[in-house]
Amino acid sequence: MAAMFNKMVIAGVGLIGGSLALDMRRHGLVKEIIGYGRSEQNLRFARKKGMIDGYFLRESEIPANVDFLMMGTPVQAIVPLTALFLPRLDDGCIVSDVGSVKGEIVKGMERILPAGIHFVGAHPIAGSEHWGAEAAYTNLFKGRRCILTPNQRTQRAALKKMKLLWQRVGAKVEIMNAAQHDRILGLVSHLPHVAAFALVNALGQTKLEGVDITGYCAGGFKDITRIASSRPELWRDICLLNHKALSASLGQYIKNLQRMKRWIDDSDGRSLEDEFARANATRGEMA
Amino acid sequence: MAAMFNKMVIAGVGLIGGSLALDMRRHGLVKEIIGYGRSEQNLRFARKKGMIDGYFLRESEIPANVDFLMMGTPVQAIVPLTALFLPRLDDGCIVSDVGSVKGEIVKGMERILPAGIHFVGAHPIAGSEHWGAEAAYTNLFKGRRCILTPNQRTQRAALKKMKLLWQRVGAKVEIMNAAQHDRILGLVSHLPHVAAFALVNALGQTKLEGVDITGYCAGGFKDITRIASSRPELWRDICLLNHKALSASLGQYIKNLQRMKRWIDDSDGRSLEDEFARANATRGEMA
Repeated sequence: MAAMFNKMVIAGVGLIGGSLALDMRRHGLVKEIIGYGRSEQNLRFARKKGMIDGYFLRESEIPANVDFLMMGTPVQAIVPLTALFLPRLDDGCIVSDVGSVKGEIVKGMERILPAGIHFVGAHPIAGSEHWGAEAAYTNLFKGRRCILTPNQRTQRAALKKMKLLWQRVGAKVEIMNAAQHDRILGLVSHLPHVAAFALVNALGQTKLEGVDITGYCAGGFKDITRIASSRPELWRDICLLNHKALSASLGQYIKNLQRMKRWIDDSDGRSLEDEFARANATRGEMA
Repeated sequence: MAAMFNKMVIAGVGLIGGSLALDMRRHGLVKEIIGYGRSEQNLRFARKKGMIDGYFLRESEIPANVDFLMMGTPVQAIVPLTALFLPRLDDGCIVSDVGSVKGEIVKGMERILPAGIHFVGAHPIAGSEHWGAEAAYTNLFKGRRCILTPNQRTQRAALKKMKLLWQRVGAKVEIMNAAQHDRILGLVSHLPHVAAFALVNALGQTKLEGVDITGYCAGGFKDITRIASSRPELWRDICLLNHKALSASLGQYIKNLQRMKRWIDDSDGRSLEDEFARANATRGEMA
């Protein structure tokens, strides 16, 4: 099969961008991959590992004839950075991203992109608390969902191409609108991160007569707070960009906790048990 | 080394009780182990696996000459069930437990036990979301903490014996007062369970245009909500018995979340990032 693209730029060669580069090259989907990022050390590492053929550090140095620009940076940077690349992009170039928030990014891209450059928003659900090119590996997307969020203005051919690309690297592609994506991810990903950060801090705040409480955190606590090791600035950006959906689900979560606190204060064992059993059942459906 | 005990009764031959039985037998710490529980099927399984030599199902059938009664039942049952065994216990018998809450149990035991029967509260920190004798295995306690919570009325000889017992099965024994135990465990174990139950229910409550959200729950969500698979009635009891400490830490947690929600609503990225970074640092100390 012929390569889908001739010259691709990946801005942000991290876990997602780096893994995509590895797989696209392995499957012969692209002839040349050029990296961009703020850390030259990271880009050198990516080149050494064969993820990229070369790299550039200044936006104005983006090469000519790029036919695929993949934005793999933290979410807040995706639209403004694309705007800086824009003057040197040719008509027909496809721009995509892998950001965890879609509504604001789709809106922002529509504001800045001219008619000849085609944007397709994407979110491969394959994150972890690890980051950088060092965390990248082949087959990261195999069997994972990749949600594409086109709207009526999305070019059909570009959408088709992006769908094929993600399928070729093993992802299960799903199409939905950006707002629905943001509500779902706000609930199953962004909310749990906020919950974990807050939980670790509830522990960090508590001083118990000089006892180091962290020593008592067994497997359970470590499991559920593992995601609190995620990058603060990255999650700050995700929370801000998806503030509407996240605020709603966070509000719901706080309400649940307040109700549980009332039951605990009132020794209402029946209500507590019902609530726990409901969680049990829902959790069972995921297993 | 001679056996520490002649005849031991384990009430509740589950993950903890069953594992303790396996290890005590393996290390020759006891000559005979008799099980008690509500499920005959579970007790039969435990006998088949060599955890116990025999069992009884009615409290009044507890054998004579028991010199060690280990209460491994759900926390709410520990004191009332001990009261039912009491008429047939001889002076000198040691009673202990493995409950995740200590204050109310220590108080309750002091209320019911006569001077000649010696109670030592214990909590081996080795729980999981699995339960029953089937979940028991040897060396469960190796390297785990076991917290003993004596007070001024605890017999020194009994405390010494319990300390030795837990050390012999590989646990790191720690002594602290029951109130402090409950504050620490309220924070590092009971609060995370409540947080996980509430998180799963926030998800279960949300209906998104017919989409089954559970399908989008990737590794991260599953990790942090694994403990929501724990037994509802068991956690209901723990929450009720440790309501004071748990309510305080839950209140602290809700406050953290409300503050974060405000920052998200106000797009206060600086405060969010500081909060996430603080969680990052605390989490790093546990790794």
